[in-house]
Amino acid sequence: MPDIGIIGAGVAGLHLGLLLRRHDIPVTLYSDRTPAQIAAGPLPATVAHHAPTLRREAALGVGFWPADTYGYTCHHHYVGGPRPLTFRGDFTSPSCGVDHRLVLPALTDVFQDRGGELRTGRVAADEVAGLAARHDLLVVATGRGPLADLFPRLDGPGSATAPRRRLCAGLYHGVAPAEPKGVTLSLAPGRGELIEIPLYSGHGHVTALLFECVPGGGADALCSLDQRAGPAAFDRAVRAELAAHHPTVFARTDPARFGLTGPLDLVRTAITPTVRADWAELPGGRYALALGDAHTVVDPIVGQGANTASYSAEVVADAVLDAPVLDELFCRRVARRRAEVVLGAARWSELMLRPPEHVRRLLGAMSECRSAADEFTDNFGRPDRQWRLLATPERTRAFLARHGVLPG
Amino acid sequence: MPDIGIIGAGVAGLHLGLLLRRHDIPVTLYSDRTPAQIAAGPLPATVAHHAPTLRREAALGVGFWPADTYGYTCHHHYVGGPRPLTFRGDFTSPSCGVDHRLVLPALTDVFQDRGGELRTGRVAADEVAGLAARHDLLVVATGRGPLADLFPRLDGPGSATAPRRRLCAGLYHGVAPAEPKGVTLSLAPGRGELIEIPLYSGHGHVTALLFECVPGGGADALCSLDQRAGPAAFDRAVRAELAAHHPTVFARTDPARFGLTGPLDLVRTAITPTVRADWAELPGGRYALALGDAHTVVDPIVGQGANTASYSAEVVADAVLDAPVLDELFCRRVARRRAEVVLGAARWSELMLRPPEHVRRLLGAMSECRSAADEFTDNFGRPDRQWRLLATPERTRAFLARHGVLPG
Ligand SMILES: Cc1cc2nc3c(=O)[nH]c(=O)nc-3n(C[C@H](O)[C@H](O)[C@H](O)COP(=O)(O)OP(=O)(O)OC[C@H]3O[C@@H](n4cnc5c(N)ncnc54)[C@H](O)[C@@H]3O)c2cc1C
Ligand SMILES: Cc1cc2nc3c(=O)[nH]c(=O)nc-3n(C[C@H](O)[C@H](O)[C@H](O)COP(=O)(O)OP(=O)(O)OC[C@H]3O[C@@H](n4cnc5c(N)ncnc54)[C@H](O)[C@@H]3O)c2cc1C
Repeated sequence: MPDIGIIGAGVAGLHLGLLLRRHDIPVTLYSDRTPAQIAAGPLPATVAHHAPTLRREAALGVGFWPADTYGYTCHHHYVGGPRPLTFRGDFTSPSCGVDHRLVLPALTDVFQDRGGELRTGRVAADEVAGLAARHDLLVVATGRGPLADLFPRLDGPGSATAPRRRLCAGLYHGVAPAEPKGVTLSLAPGRGELIEIPLYSGHGHVTALLFECVPGGGADALCSLDQRAGPAAFDRAVRAELAAHHPTVFARTDPARFGLTGPLDLVRTAITPTVRADWAELPGGRYALALGDAHTVVDPIVGQGANTASYSAEVVADAVLDAPVLDELFCRRVARRRAEVVLGAARWSELMLRPPEHVRRLLGAMSECRSAADEFTDNFGRPDRQWRLLATPERTRAFLARHGVLPG
Repeated sequence: MPDIGIIGAGVAGLHLGLLLRRHDIPVTLYSDRTPAQIAAGPLPATVAHHAPTLRREAALGVGFWPADTYGYTCHHHYVGGPRPLTFRGDFTSPSCGVDHRLVLPALTDVFQDRGGELRTGRVAADEVAGLAARHDLLVVATGRGPLADLFPRLDGPGSATAPRRRLCAGLYHGVAPAEPKGVTLSLAPGRGELIEIPLYSGHGHVTALLFECVPGGGADALCSLDQRAGPAAFDRAVRAELAAHHPTVFARTDPARFGLTGPLDLVRTAITPTVRADWAELPGGRYALALGDAHTVVDPIVGQGANTASYSAEVVADAVLDAPVLDELFCRRVARRRAEVVLGAARWSELMLRPPEHVRRLLGAMSECRSAADEFTDNFGRPDRQWRLLATPERTRAFLARHGVLPG
């Protein structure tokens, strides 16, 4: 039975660890932080898990926040402009947003209860080869941290040289959920997008507001405001941004209660979309495999990073179970098996950050065709399928024609 | 609904045609021969269908020769040398050999009954672009014929520059089936291999003898003997080859009855293993997709060509059903989805034609480990899996270790 080392205890590392432990495969997880430190730390992201990820978690017995209570069933859309569009799209199975500061420590506990070994301490780049020698395979699941540089960045689809958005994501009180409970995707052309997510956190049911700010577009002022120096001014600025550009969300705010849930519940960052090589050969003939954000980072515009990381963990676990030896052929197989979904997510995310004509037209068409909007929404759980529908104008035309929308 | 044109009515074209007709997709099959001409023609090959292919045929309602009556359940092995080895491997589900001159016309009938259109006439290379303009996708399933040159040959794994064997395949009376009924793989190191298959043909239950002759190894004399000029001499030469090099098959021959079932029941050829590009763009922006032998030809040493063609047909059919548009992205997806099985079959076939040390050792180990021999045998239906077990000495060692065979 192979012995697997995993660096990084995010969703990628933990889902892989749990999937392998289900088959009693020895796993050691190296994490720079204890579960308690993660739980008490700053908001890492505002993550929604889509149906395939939720199913994976349920199958692993870690579906602690069932979607019928904690989840939501649809996307509400608002597209600003001279003639604003609003429309809804339904999932066939709900999605669910839970603060990863709750999720990850809970999963780490289960991982240890099931015989997984957790070692705390930051792994330095020059320690990787030594660690690899202790395991049959080393998986690098360290997120956007520097260890990912072990895997050369691949130019080409999905990779960019600079962030396309500056992100300001936080948890807020005082926003009533949309009806039916759902995510709102609110687009302010030229300025950026707002993704509003009903999310369960240590404060109970709260609202995540993720501003995707076009650099220099105006909304990015939120990314430099000093929240700690002036919490009230920060809250006012956020609400003013909603008022001016995201009216359907603004309409649900309660001025008396609106505000960030706490100074730790804010993350401001910017992501350079990056696709990396799937694996690296290490001195000594062992292999390191990239997983999750360490393999491919996407802007969260359509919420794909964590879901893809979980999918990829399943591909790796299945391949480990099937492989006689964890050699280059094994790595190559993992690469081939996950490429469609991982690259689909990357290319679809890229497309939404700079929507070409046919994608902008699609939004208009979906505002008049509910079944197309439903399919588009459901495909948040199938990014490869979404990419296949949107990749070219012809494909999007055929997708719409299937829903009875003729080019006009 | 897309409209598909397929050139070539072999197992590749017919399986694809039937799979598509199941979903009422319009299909036109272009064949240079009528079903009656195929039925009355020379033996094309001595083909065994393995369990996945038989399941596909049953699901299509064309399983006319059920394996429990017409099939066989195991491989008998004989490895010649100073200390000959004999051992058996069992399938979990039987395989079945039926003369394609019975199979293909029957499938063509069903194809037409189900609304598929058959056009008879040889398609010339300069007619391809014109045909493509009449369909949304043109599939080239013309076997080893020249139309495959539309798809550039790829150097690299699976491609060779010359045949590794000369083939002499025929149908014979006067060989009693092995017990239990099975294929015999008889290896005469340096000289070549004999693959003896219980096969159902127009003559009833007969025996296929496929001599895989190393060029210049001696057995290849059978490939140049003039059978029509001297049928009795030919039969004698074949029986002498069995007597000298394939004793377990020879022991089952009946001298009074032994002989070729008829002058048409013999094929002598030689195959240059060739992997080609998956698709070609045609003038006018349409695409032609390669399928079956037109895509990848393997030597029949481990009986993979027709089975892989059928698998590949299923990948293409699934992709057609899922694709909004049959464009380059569609072709790329087909290529990615079938690569593991198609290249697995090609590389495994290549490996068996020039078995390296670890494969020769595996034969010895299997002669003493029935469970390993069973798994090896069952993997005739899963060539990708077989390749993953045999690709390197380490992998084969791990495969054997799993069966309790330690390196010795
Ligand atoms: C604002 C925002 C919103 C998002 N929304 C969504 C969404 O809705 N849906 C979605 O699917 N994705 C979303 N994402 C993306 C998602 O958060 C990431 O893709 C996902 O968390 C990546 O998981 P991971 O396990 O690969 O990496 P991480 O979650 O980053 O985990 C890596 C872990 O490794 C540890 N580590 C790093 N270096 C070392 C080292 N040297 N030694 C030891 N440990 C180390 C880190 O501390 C960390 O715990 C969002 C991201 C952001 C920023
Ligand atoms: C001796 C021998 C034994 C074998 N044993 C096995 C085995 O046990 N298992 C296995 O899986 N495989 C086996 N194979 C391989 C198998 O026969 C082939 O891989 C398989 O038949 C390929 O099917 P296909 O449909 O791609 O091509 P084909 O069966 O060659 O069919 C192509 C068709 O296209 C037609 N055609 C060609 N050119 C044109 C044109 N220009 N216009 C119109 N029509 C055209 C041809 O007449 C033919 O009918 C064996 C092969 C040989 C030679």
